[in-house]
Amino acid sequence: MGRCVIFTHSLALSLAYLTDGEEGTALVSPLTASEAMDPDAVAKAFVEHYYRTFDSNRQALGGLYQDGSMLTFEGDKIQGAAAIVAKLTSLPFQQCAHAISTVDCQPSGPPGGVLVFVSGSLQLGGEQHSLKFSQMFHLIPTPQGSFYVLNDIFRLNYA
Amino acid sequence: MGRCVIFTHSLALSLAYLTDGEEGTALVSPLTASEAMDPDAVAKAFVEHYYRTFDSNRQALGGLYQDGSMLTFEGDKIQGAAAIVAKLTSLPFQQCAHAISTVDCQPSGPPGGVLVFVSGSLQLGGEQHSLKFSQMFHLIPTPQGSFYVLNDIFRLNYA
Repeated sequence: MGRCVIFTHSLALSLAYLTDGEEGTALVSPLTASEAMDPDAVAKAFVEHYYRTFDSNRQALGGLYQDGSMLTFEGDKIQGAAAIVAKLTSLPFQQCAHAISTVDCQPSGPPGGVLVFVSGSLQLGGEQHSLKFSQMFHLIPTPQGSFYVLNDIFRLNYA
Repeated sequence: MGRCVIFTHSLALSLAYLTDGEEGTALVSPLTASEAMDPDAVAKAFVEHYYRTFDSNRQALGGLYQDGSMLTFEGDKIQGAAAIVAKLTSLPFQQCAHAISTVDCQPSGPPGGVLVFVSGSLQLGGEQHSLKFSQMFHLIPTPQGSFYVLNDIFRLNYA
C-alpha cells in the first residue's frame, strides 16, 4: 500500500504518517511540521480532511482554527475559532457534499506554512444544481507539530 | 476629490497617497508599509493596479515580483520575477480585459502582509465569451515601504 498521509486533530490539526507494516498493521508516528513534508502533501491531506469533515460534522471543524484565525465567507468577516464554527454550523443547509476540482499550493509565511487554493463544486441537500466555489487557506505549523488555519476565504463562483 | 490610493512601482510595488491640493495639483508622499494602511485599502489599490497593468502592459508586472516570488498559473508552477514575466508575456493572447467581481483580503504573514482573493472574468481579444477566474496573492511589505507579490495562484473557473 505504500504510505499515505492522514489527518487527525484535537485543538489543532495533527499530521501523521501511516505506514503499512504487515497486513492489517499500521504504524502511526507523528511528524513535526519542520520535518520534510512537501507542501503538496500537506495541501492534499488537508483538503481531503477539511471537506470530509465539513460534509459529515461541521462542528468538528473548530479544531482546525485558533483564536486569531479569520474566515471571510461570501464577504462576511469572522474571527476566532468559536465564531467561525458558529458561522459554519449556522449555514442554512443540513446536508452538503463538496467535489474538489483543483488544489494548488505554495509555501508562505513561517517555515512550514502553506497556502492552499481550492476550486470545486458544492451540492446541497434537496438542490438540483451544484454551486461552484473557490476557497483559500493559509495553514500555519504549530510548535506541537500540527497545523492550524490562520486564513480562510470562501466565495461562490456565480455563473 | 478627497484622497485616493495609487500604486507606482519600480522593482517593487510602492504605495503612495495622492492628495488633491488645488485643481491640477497633486501631492504624492510615500508611505511605509508599517504605517496604518488597512488591508482593504491595500487590496483594492493593488487589484486596480495589477489588472490595469496586466491589460495594458504585461511586461511591467515584473516589478511586482522578486526572485523568491511564486506563480502557479493553471497548475503550472513558476518561480522568480523573470520567469513569471516570461510566462505572463507568453500567454497566447494579445489583448485582454479583466472585470473584477469580488475582492476579499485578510492580514497574514509578516506585519503588513496581506492576502488578496479575487474573482472576476476575463475577456480575450477576438473571443465572444468571457472566462471566469479566481486568483489569490500574498503581498509582503518591503523595508523600502513598498509591497511585492510573494505568492500568486491563478485558476480559470470552468462552467
